[in-house]
Amino acid sequence: MSTVATYPTDLQQRVDAYLAGVRFAREPGTERLEEAMRYSLLAGGKRIRPVLALATAEALGRDPSEVLPMAAAIEMVHTYSLIHDDLPAMDDDELRRGQPTCHVAYGEDVAILAGDGLFAEALRLVLAEQQGEPARVLGAVRELVSAAGVEGMVGGQFLDVTGHPGANVRRLHELKTGALIAASVGCVLWLAGPSEPATIPYRRFAAELGVMFQIVDDILDVTGDEAELGKPRGSDERHGRATYVSVYGLERARELARESHAGARAALAEADGSTDKLGQIADYILTRTT
Amino acid sequence: MSTVATYPTDLQQRVDAYLAGVRFAREPGTERLEEAMRYSLLAGGKRIRPVLALATAEALGRDPSEVLPMAAAIEMVHTYSLIHDDLPAMDDDELRRGQPTCHVAYGEDVAILAGDGLFAEALRLVLAEQQGEPARVLGAVRELVSAAGVEGMVGGQFLDVTGHPGANVRRLHELKTGALIAASVGCVLWLAGPSEPATIPYRRFAAELGVMFQIVDDILDVTGDEAELGKPRGSDERHGRATYVSVYGLERARELARESHAGARAALAEADGSTDKLGQIADYILTRTT
Repeated sequence: MSTVATYPTDLQQRVDAYLAGVRFAREPGTERLEEAMRYSLLAGGKRIRPVLALATAEALGRDPSEVLPMAAAIEMVHTYSLIHDDLPAMDDDELRRGQPTCHVAYGEDVAILAGDGLFAEALRLVLAEQQGEPARVLGAVRELVSAAGVEGMVGGQFLDVTGHPGANVRRLHELKTGALIAASVGCVLWLAGPSEPATIPYRRFAAELGVMFQIVDDILDVTGDEAELGKPRGSDERHGRATYVSVYGLERARELARESHAGARAALAEADGSTDKLGQIADYILTRTT
Repeated sequence: MSTVATYPTDLQQRVDAYLAGVRFAREPGTERLEEAMRYSLLAGGKRIRPVLALATAEALGRDPSEVLPMAAAIEMVHTYSLIHDDLPAMDDDELRRGQPTCHVAYGEDVAILAGDGLFAEALRLVLAEQQGEPARVLGAVRELVSAAGVEGMVGGQFLDVTGHPGANVRRLHELKTGALIAASVGCVLWLAGPSEPATIPYRRFAAELGVMFQIVDDILDVTGDEAELGKPRGSDERHGRATYVSVYGLERARELARESHAGARAALAEADGSTDKLGQIADYILTRTT
């Protein structure tokens, strides 16, 4: 594909509208903390994770609005991880989506707390607002926090910052990026509750998507347009990171991305449900330029 | 009281044994991350929060072991907050319980991730292991994450590090310390599920306890023994903090602590149940020297 694929902007708009309405606290004196949290949360982006959640609900015959609290919580957890990853002690990045990172704008202490606060408030939101049988909500939240923990984002970021020699690049990114993308589908499987066999193609789809997302990310860090990326190109190389491009080369990385895309598409073809928008998201992730 | 009161060490031993057995992940390459998490989690301390949780269960006629996953999660959330509070960008403390703080021992990047990881793994533990009706478990977890969020720990720490002039000392500490201490009782009220009116004295007890804990903390920072405290005295003054002592003076702070203790004891006297150990904890908090 040479042009960027269609993206389900209708779902993105619902996510953006919902996120804009989320309030974290009414605590006097903490307004600047909330401002920092909203600064990062509302910085834009395609909202791939929550859009995936809504598209999964739609595929399973549910009204996507039903899972908005869960979807918003996933995006808040994602934003928290970006804020902490950007910190001086971690990747020390100064730009994100074309604007100063949270610690540059608000100071390092506030940025640490903004990340911590987004994680806690994400869970509070979903536990207070997400409708559904309690056992299902519990399963969904457990999947979210597992994706955020040592066998997910935190473990992946640890392998990344410490450059652990034993970690292979695929596993590192399965943890750092893939787990939360997979959970964006998986949490909705919990909430919507199709039969166990019916979940299998969805989970395979989500796993391939996570891998593909990261491969394309690594490619864009080498070939992308800085204005579109909203940050300088080449940050992986500067950080001495093992990426799909550094390990496999650009051409092989592109092949791997296409293979994951084909795998995601094949999984969808086996899934029961109206999976058009999930397919669009897979196409978009392969062809995106930002 | 001139000597330190009895403490329910039987409950503390159960907490310590359970915490020692908690494993966070089997992810290859993340062993040092787990080591950092366990370094801080197993650094000792009286385990006041989880012991409170167990004592509340006992007071309500439950086997304290039933709430061990919840109690451990509370201690893990507490430990995560200590690790982040100690960071150079926050309080920049080098000693905690007589040993180097997490970032001194493991580096700042690992310490940030160890805190993040403890928070996620705490929730994963309770959502995976805590027995009970799902609706009750969800209520308990919601109370825990609320206590960790903007209207709790994170909001309180924000007021503390930014020295917001509008924040009064009592409210700051209600958020920073009191919310999690109150949740140590409150989460077990969710799990054990006594009638709504029966929870009222327990909640009043917990609120008074949180206030008293912080007043005594502020007093010990001025009058305590450095070897017993495991850190240098006077850190509040060096950080320019508003404390009960700096705002009210030492004598009035002592009076306030005794008033809160009397309030906590009065609340317990109205509570149904075998509240002996909860009373011991209140006495211990008033008379503790570390």
